[in-house]
Amino acid sequence: MTKALLSPLPRLLVQDAVRGALKEDLGRAGDITTNAIIAPGARIRAVIGARQAGRIAGLDLAEAAFDMLDETIVFERCVDDGEDIEAGGIVARLEGNTRAILSAERVALNYLGHMSGIATATQKLVALTAGTKAQICDTRKTTPGLRLLEKYAVKAGGGTNHRFGLDDAVLIKDNHIAAAGGVAQAISAVKANVGHMVKIEVEVDNLDQLRLALASGVDAVLLDNMSADMLAGAVGMIGEQALAEASGGVNAATVAQIAASGVDLISVGALTHSAPALDLGLDF
Amino acid sequence: MTKALLSPLPRLLVQDAVRGALKEDLGRAGDITTNAIIAPGARIRAVIGARQAGRIAGLDLAEAAFDMLDETIVFERCVDDGEDIEAGGIVARLEGNTRAILSAERVALNYLGHMSGIATATQKLVALTAGTKAQICDTRKTTPGLRLLEKYAVKAGGGTNHRFGLDDAVLIKDNHIAAAGGVAQAISAVKANVGHMVKIEVEVDNLDQLRLALASGVDAVLLDNMSADMLAGAVGMIGEQALAEASGGVNAATVAQIAASGVDLISVGALTHSAPALDLGLDF
Amino acid sequence: MTKALLSPLPRLLVQDAVRGALKEDLGRAGDITTNAIIAPGARIRAVIGARQAGRIAGLDLAEAAFDMLDETIVFERCVDDGEDIEAGGIVARLEGNTRAILSAERVALNYLGHMSGIATATQKLVALTAGTKAQICDTRKTTPGLRLLEKYAVKAGGGTNHRFGLDDAVLIKDNHIAAAGGVAQAISAVKANVGHMVKIEVEVDNLDQLRLALASGVDAVLLDNMSADMLAGAVGMIGEQALAEASGGVNAATVAQIAASGVDLISVGALTHSAPALDLGLDF
Amino acid sequence: MTKALLSPLPRLLVQDAVRGALKEDLGRAGDITTNAIIAPGARIRAVIGARQAGRIAGLDLAEAAFDMLDETIVFERCVDDGEDIEAGGIVARLEGNTRAILSAERVALNYLGHMSGIATATQKLVALTAGTKAQICDTRKTTPGLRLLEKYAVKAGGGTNHRFGLDDAVLIKDNHIAAAGGVAQAISAVKANVGHMVKIEVEVDNLDQLRLALASGVDAVLLDNMSADMLAGAVGMIGEQALAEASGGVNAATVAQIAASGVDLISVGALTHSAPALDLGLDF
Amino acid sequence: MTKALLSPLPRLLVQDAVRGALKEDLGRAGDITTNAIIAPGARIRAVIGARQAGRIAGLDLAEAAFDMLDETIVFERCVDDGEDIEAGGIVARLEGNTRAILSAERVALNYLGHMSGIATATQKLVALTAGTKAQICDTRKTTPGLRLLEKYAVKAGGGTNHRFGLDDAVLIKDNHIAAAGGVAQAISAVKANVGHMVKIEVEVDNLDQLRLALASGVDAVLLDNMSADMLAGAVGMIGEQALAEASGGVNAATVAQIAASGVDLISVGALTHSAPALDLGLDF
Amino acid sequence: MTKALLSPLPRLLVQDAVRGALKEDLGRAGDITTNAIIAPGARIRAVIGARQAGRIAGLDLAEAAFDMLDETIVFERCVDDGEDIEAGGIVARLEGNTRAILSAERVALNYLGHMSGIATATQKLVALTAGTKAQICDTRKTTPGLRLLEKYAVKAGGGTNHRFGLDDAVLIKDNHIAAAGGVAQAISAVKANVGHMVKIEVEVDNLDQLRLALASGVDAVLLDNMSADMLAGAVGMIGEQALAEASGGVNAATVAQIAASGVDLISVGALTHSAPALDLGLDF
Repeated sequence: MTKALLSPLPRLLVQDAVRGALKEDLGRAGDITTNAIIAPGARIRAVIGARQAGRIAGLDLAEAAFDMLDETIVFERCVDDGEDIEAGGIVARLEGNTRAILSAERVALNYLGHMSGIATATQKLVALTAGTKAQICDTRKTTPGLRLLEKYAVKAGGGTNHRFGLDDAVLIKDNHIAAAGGVAQAISAVKANVGHMVKIEVEVDNLDQLRLALASGVDAVLLDNMSADMLAGAVGMIGEQALAEASGGVNAATVAQIAASGVDLISVGALTHSAPALDLGLDF
Repeated sequence: MTKALLSPLPRLLVQDAVRGALKEDLGRAGDITTNAIIAPGARIRAVIGARQAGRIAGLDLAEAAFDMLDETIVFERCVDDGEDIEAGGIVARLEGNTRAILSAERVALNYLGHMSGIATATQKLVALTAGTKAQICDTRKTTPGLRLLEKYAVKAGGGTNHRFGLDDAVLIKDNHIAAAGGVAQAISAVKANVGHMVKIEVEVDNLDQLRLALASGVDAVLLDNMSADMLAGAVGMIGEQALAEASGGVNAATVAQIAASGVDLISVGALTHSAPALDLGLDF
Repeated sequence: MTKALLSPLPRLLVQDAVRGALKEDLGRAGDITTNAIIAPGARIRAVIGARQAGRIAGLDLAEAAFDMLDETIVFERCVDDGEDIEAGGIVARLEGNTRAILSAERVALNYLGHMSGIATATQKLVALTAGTKAQICDTRKTTPGLRLLEKYAVKAGGGTNHRFGLDDAVLIKDNHIAAAGGVAQAISAVKANVGHMVKIEVEVDNLDQLRLALASGVDAVLLDNMSADMLAGAVGMIGEQALAEASGGVNAATVAQIAASGVDLISVGALTHSAPALDLGLDF
Repeated sequence: MTKALLSPLPRLLVQDAVRGALKEDLGRAGDITTNAIIAPGARIRAVIGARQAGRIAGLDLAEAAFDMLDETIVFERCVDDGEDIEAGGIVARLEGNTRAILSAERVALNYLGHMSGIATATQKLVALTAGTKAQICDTRKTTPGLRLLEKYAVKAGGGTNHRFGLDDAVLIKDNHIAAAGGVAQAISAVKANVGHMVKIEVEVDNLDQLRLALASGVDAVLLDNMSADMLAGAVGMIGEQALAEASGGVNAATVAQIAASGVDLISVGALTHSAPALDLGLDF
Repeated sequence: MTKALLSPLPRLLVQDAVRGALKEDLGRAGDITTNAIIAPGARIRAVIGARQAGRIAGLDLAEAAFDMLDETIVFERCVDDGEDIEAGGIVARLEGNTRAILSAERVALNYLGHMSGIATATQKLVALTAGTKAQICDTRKTTPGLRLLEKYAVKAGGGTNHRFGLDDAVLIKDNHIAAAGGVAQAISAVKANVGHMVKIEVEVDNLDQLRLALASGVDAVLLDNMSADMLAGAVGMIGEQALAEASGGVNAATVAQIAASGVDLISVGALTHSAPALDLGLDF
Repeated sequence: MTKALLSPLPRLLVQDAVRGALKEDLGRAGDITTNAIIAPGARIRAVIGARQAGRIAGLDLAEAAFDMLDETIVFERCVDDGEDIEAGGIVARLEGNTRAILSAERVALNYLGHMSGIATATQKLVALTAGTKAQICDTRKTTPGLRLLEKYAVKAGGGTNHRFGLDDAVLIKDNHIAAAGGVAQAISAVKANVGHMVKIEVEVDNLDQLRLALASGVDAVLLDNMSADMLAGAVGMIGEQALAEASGGVNAATVAQIAASGVDLISVGALTHSAPALDLGLDF
């Protein structure tokens, strides 16, 4: 993706997150090893390097980690969030107080590795669906406390974001339909209750449900665990009436075929709950 | 591991974590889908089931998620943290207010899936080192904000915990050694500064450094990225003088050979930064 | 509105709000008047009464205020949120510890009076637009820290909610259009950036801008400060292509005429920034 | 009032308040409209203008809102808190990063409009009582969470502050008197309990109670809902023995007559619970 | 003091304090000793006993510490706050979950010992001034974060409270007088600025300043570091015009003579900044 | 102690602590005395002076208090933490905004006096044990919420730190031993449960328990309330097998004799729960 399209994380929330993570690592007494050995005024240069190729995300958090321990540390980015790096490439260059750099190192790398891991996993699926209109998108299957950061990383990977929580969009699932007494009734109840700026999506398991959903009028339909053939049929039935989102069983082996069905979106929980960290390190 | 050995997470910290995660998901307006469709007094039964085999961890968090939205929900555990489950097995049974169960579902599963994923990854390496004295242990390469929970999950997987932060134990690394002017100087500086209840470990890259470390007296040595032969040599040199910890390049293919070197501990960052979530779901 | 349609406020957020308000009022030493005079075990009955007619909202907060100081206080609702009360009517009956009731009284009434004031102001405009399809809706012109509660009160008054913040829906205003170089460019930039579950509204000042907006495709258009004639023309041009929202100069004298133009929504900042409190009191 | 008499709000509390309000508005993903359209480095000039005449209060909060999103924004005040502005007048001039200015605009205006509305409402009553010794003062009928800010706004309007909470001064009301068994007993209980730096006021409904209160010795008496004649009688009886505060039924039509009774203070809940916002806007 | 006069600490603030203290002690992993050794369901009886005689304060905090770790623990008070205990006496009896009792023990005792130490130190000075009208009172020289609790302990010791902070009463000191250009000017500036429920005290170093202060009218005068003769002279000059407070050089050897001067109050910083803890222990 | 050995307190935690303490003192309305009298732009010079000789600790907190109210205040240290000062000596020089200096004064002095009091008390015992190998160390008997700061002060006094909480080291006490069924069983249970970076200490009351503890292997033994003879015997038995810590009945009269027994550590609760504040003042 082009950098211009990647909206920055809200600065206030980055500060809150990093402050919490530093306090988690510093504990009560701080970095007792570094403070016992390194002179207070010592200075150092370091680089954050990539041990493997991938897509970078999380530089604001890494920079904030160093900045919070010493605001005179110079943090120079060699790539930006949303850009790719080769194995052996340099992500950023640092110069400043040695104590602060050593004490913030792990928090910075933990954020950067986690978020870049998600961006990299996303980018791989995005690449596999190139040439289709399908966008790779995330879910609410995120690590507790990190949803905002993880959804940002998905965007850095070239994906797009599903709803951020239970409150900012409607997603009617099978339990809701059962409780409401049917697809139409569930949609009707929602429309009577939520504001006009809230989008409505309904999960359907078969084409009958899909037909009812389209008749009621929704913004998107979630086609859950359908075969490629069924997906294609659903996409044809939907046409321009709603966005078509596929989910279930998505991985590197299946994503191209799913995208070929013509769906608009492919949502993948594994982007945020199972992406391995990108291997990054701080070298002096 | 036997259940008796798994100390519970501090309840106050579980409450803080879950409260934060629920607020992250509920956002401002709460579960607008469920509230629009499900009647306030409706009740439901559900089970948390395992879609794949693994080791369970995180039940306290899952239970707290439901309890915080409705303290009358009955949450019955079918396994305990630290126990294995088969694919298709039932983790817990729930009964209570439908709205609360649906609204808390994702937070509960996100915790349980993430922590069980770590426990499962740990258990796999533990199994591969059976019959050796090597224990699998974690690192500070954890997800920001979740270190406590992730280290608990490692224990549930049969592993053991390295230090929790920068403050509760000393780990002297290469930068510290370089800044101090040598292994002996770094150890000496630390001993002059930290309290008597703090253990000291030093990372060594070669046997010369190891010899110096042992001469100074430390509680443990971290043998970083050594070949199996070199590890064995180091272990022999160490004898009973300190604990021997291996790190670097540990995975399912290498762990048995590393363990065979006779080290006491094998630390693995991937346990906490790259373990995929265990696939769990809530069924009605 | 019917009660069934009024989704409850998230309990965790109600608790946070009320806890903060009680601490604001109790200060450091608590209710020094009551504690000096009233015996610890004294009990009392009281009623919350309406000094004027209006629409009630905020009972969860009032109840939580008493409950947090003494969870054995019985709080019996005589009306529900979203229902009307006559002057002299009884909102709720209380029985329990005198100290706790007196100490929580002001916080409970401050919430209930503020939120009922908003509900009442909303209900008046809703009544004035009866028979039209126009819904009365709120804005982001809310009291800092109280947005969630105030938007809930608007719903209790029969209105509907606009977006809750800068993040859950797009509203393109004149500055955005100017910076983007035109309506179409602004809409295009947004569509390339936000997720598929986010609705897009654009503010237009004239019919040329409206035409461009409709051509680009948006979910809603905000017709700002237009005359009744111009509104009617805009509504006709829009047809089924988007929702039409009127804003600017809305009050009891003008709202019926604005609604008669056929707009779908009429947004009113005064609902939340200028509604006088409903006069309620606690009587013993 | 002269500016010199208006003590500034504690800076730490201003920061806490504004930080919370910005996070409420930015939500999870921040200003998605602005970030999608406006270039990161774009700069803009803007003015905060008054759409109607009034008394200004809250500039510290407005300035903090912009400063927290970008500390290089220049915020130049054209009036100060406690000064009047004409319709069409300019409150402040801004220059700096466009994204930050647009994203902070609503929070800044919400604070400034709310607090200036209170200052303006206060100033109106102050003007109506010019030439008397009566001071207009506030109550604890404030918006939850905003008491400090609202009481500051009352001072900016030329009024004075009653107690800030339940803990910093004693106000004995009818329920306390009833529970204590009489005015004298209630006052005696309080005097035995509170410190020497705490003032004591007692609410009286009639001249008999007043006589008892004066005999016991109090700092102030609250003359609740008395007729003008009764007020004058009470004032005469009080003389220099205590401060006389009138409350109940105070509005623009009645305040002059109440003040003419010779009371020292007139307290008005509507200043803080029902003042409409002052209409302010940001223009580019 | 009689128990009836000791107002309880606000429960919400007690909960906040104890929760913070427990988290400070439990750290990340909780009570690793107890959890490794004691069975989850084990139960125990214990008593909190006094190793030395003293005045008790802080039972609400001790009880809350146990309650927060296990709300089924029975905590039975044998004395109340504000009552004396002999060496060897029993303060409270406990029964319940062993793990929770052992884990909360230190926090409970730390609060109880600290607060009882303050109450005991206060009580000693109170006893030494028996028969005079002088009350022993505290200052703002408190342990950061514990002011509320420490001022409560002073009351439990039979003392009285000075102002709680910089905001709830005025205390004009020498720097203020110098900056204002004199005692009268300082008092005048304050009276023009603070509300009618705020008391005003001025610190005077000599009788000239005292004369000026009385002429301006203040609620209290602080007679700082005066000799007993000078104090008596000042008290005579003050008469009924204000409260007379002595401070400086107060200890067990001097307090009776100071009290004999006829002052109303004797303030003592050492009550809160230097009182040794009362020696209490938990026995099984 | 030499300054180089005193690790600084984590800056983020200093900020949190000081921010909380300032808010405690400023309350709602801030320093109403100073703000009413002192002009906003007034500047002043001041010194923090020692009224008595002692060991200084807490300068970071004092400096932060002034800095948080006005970051342009110049705070020049004349001594460092861990250095001694004579009565009449100057601790620091200040120059800057008068309002900010006066408003922050008490918080700064409260921290500095409390922490220097602890450092001074520690230093006295350290001096009394000069020439022995015994180190003076602290306990968990700290003031709730201040443990980190108090343990830092002990180090500034030349002492050393015991564990910081229940989680960072094991201390097996008599109740644990009783519950486990013996010393060996308790140690065994702990070793099976805690990580390899956690030290283990066991409290023993007699030489039989000591023998068992040494046989099991522990890092340290706590010799509680033993006579000097018994201590010497225990030290002889322990040799190089573990660290020997004495506790109980330690004061200025007994500490030298205890140290002479050859113990490695002498732990003293009174350092943190009963040290009187060092008398410091701010002079202009």
